[in-house]
Amino acid sequence: MTAEGVNFYSPCVLVLIALGGNAMTGPDGSARPGEQIAAIRRAAEPIADLAASGVTVAVTHGNGPQVGNLLTKNELAAGIVPPVPLDWCVAQTQGTLGFILVTELERALARRGVERPVASVVSRTLVDHDDPAFTEPTKPIGRYLPAEQAAPLIEHGQTWRDFGDRGWRRVVASPRPRQVLDVAAARALLTAGFIVVAGGGGGIPMAYNADRELVGVEAVIDKDLNAALLGRELGADILVIATDVPHAVVGYGTPDAQPLGAISVEELRRYAVAGHFGSGSMGPKVEAACRFVEAGGTRAVITSLDQIAAGVRGETGTVVTAS
Amino acid sequence: MTAEGVNFYSPCVLVLIALGGNAMTGPDGSARPGEQIAAIRRAAEPIADLAASGVTVAVTHGNGPQVGNLLTKNELAAGIVPPVPLDWCVAQTQGTLGFILVTELERALARRGVERPVASVVSRTLVDHDDPAFTEPTKPIGRYLPAEQAAPLIEHGQTWRDFGDRGWRRVVASPRPRQVLDVAAARALLTAGFIVVAGGGGGIPMAYNADRELVGVEAVIDKDLNAALLGRELGADILVIATDVPHAVVGYGTPDAQPLGAISVEELRRYAVAGHFGSGSMGPKVEAACRFVEAGGTRAVITSLDQIAAGVRGETGTVVTAS
Repeated sequence: MTAEGVNFYSPCVLVLIALGGNAMTGPDGSARPGEQIAAIRRAAEPIADLAASGVTVAVTHGNGPQVGNLLTKNELAAGIVPPVPLDWCVAQTQGTLGFILVTELERALARRGVERPVASVVSRTLVDHDDPAFTEPTKPIGRYLPAEQAAPLIEHGQTWRDFGDRGWRRVVASPRPRQVLDVAAARALLTAGFIVVAGGGGGIPMAYNADRELVGVEAVIDKDLNAALLGRELGADILVIATDVPHAVVGYGTPDAQPLGAISVEELRRYAVAGHFGSGSMGPKVEAACRFVEAGGTRAVITSLDQIAAGVRGETGTVVTAS
Repeated sequence: MTAEGVNFYSPCVLVLIALGGNAMTGPDGSARPGEQIAAIRRAAEPIADLAASGVTVAVTHGNGPQVGNLLTKNELAAGIVPPVPLDWCVAQTQGTLGFILVTELERALARRGVERPVASVVSRTLVDHDDPAFTEPTKPIGRYLPAEQAAPLIEHGQTWRDFGDRGWRRVVASPRPRQVLDVAAARALLTAGFIVVAGGGGGIPMAYNADRELVGVEAVIDKDLNAALLGRELGADILVIATDVPHAVVGYGTPDAQPLGAISVEELRRYAVAGHFGSGSMGPKVEAACRFVEAGGTRAVITSLDQIAAGVRGETGTVVTAS
């Protein structure tokens, strides 16, 4: 055990890593199949290093660019192939990103001589049917379109918003994740010694309808907020939110910009309330880190992908603890 | 134990059910989301009955109409969104059909008061890179197109075949499944008490390339042949191939047509060699049933979905045993 009470090299320590979209697309953000595979191959390296150190590892991931592509295909083929709802799009990305993550993690582990099986579980997340997000959708997804192309989609019941020069973009509900429905399967696989990929894309969004039947809903769940919930439901000790910057930053973009290192939840929440973190970027990561620690996690770390092993040890990144 | 040496009500008996495409599409074969869900809801009933009887259950499934839709979307959106290869399409259908099967099985079990968790695993299947299927693709997939629309796709390297009045249709490799790569995850979940959905759509096809790296390949694996392999790798006692007819039939479509009941592998293979079963329909089911029993399975049953519980007990369907 270390001074902080965490033995970083024990299989009893469970680390959940949340991979951002940048870990799964090309340098220009494009999501061509070959570029997705190459990006995931790179992302697998630091995760394999971490697993090789002896801790138990679970992985979750975003899917923004991938869902964007699927929605565009839905649109363009709608005259011939029935479009599928958003929950299906998320499920589709769990299939593709799931098998690629499993394959690339296996490869990276094998190169290190680590024999650890890897598996990916199709994962649903429960949301409330009356979450206010459904009446006021805010999460932009998919491509920008000119107003005249957005108009017929708005007539079909979709919500689109004017983003000025860039055009119109669809906005969808991003409800709060309430329960990771397939957490038992992920836990069973971890117990059996697997590295598990679960909760991809924030989980397939589902809610109970008026008949108390569980049904898919048109929404996307923030993958970091879902990671915080998944982490606690799995009993993870450490949540690592891997992104493209080494720290959360206060005063971002100003001369007083200052990266945050070790910090308490209380102090971090004060910065959040003061508006230091963007609602579409660092904001949800900070919120997820706070929720994870408030719910009993030992620490949450926001750092860049290549720093995750050091981040787990608390040596780098924005390291959030209870006090 | 029964006379046949199988206790049909023991969790020590593992039954693998292979669901055909008809179990997952509308009555007219269409694959609109609502119709897929309704069909799977119906299919979940007899599976839940079987699980309620006490045996351990695993489920695998086809995905023909679903992959067809994805390929059409690929085509129609190719100018804007990068098309994804066939292995990705299979993975996408594992996501969607996986979460719907899990949800509908949970619902059907709950109605019966059976507390049994259900989970779906993203599943890859290894094929040989030099399988002759890659040089002579034979499996038709996707929609029919007029010759002039098929021509540019042929120029892009795809193989299309003239089906006469119906038009041209793409044909792809359907290599022999060699190993179910994610069988350990499925087994771990079964051991933990789950009903497991695995190997969907024949598994995501992968092969070792010249550098001995595991990569996805452009192919679709026959779901029944993959089911036979999955069944043996899981140690299943009984494989049930659920289809839309109650029996395999010799002399199908002739005045001498005769349904097959209990039959030995040897006799069934004689009928197959004599050409009694269609290559695109009953042929692979018969071949899968034979392979499963030859590899050590207690029995393979070909029957209709609503008869699977009786089929498992050997009371109906074409029941294939070693002798």
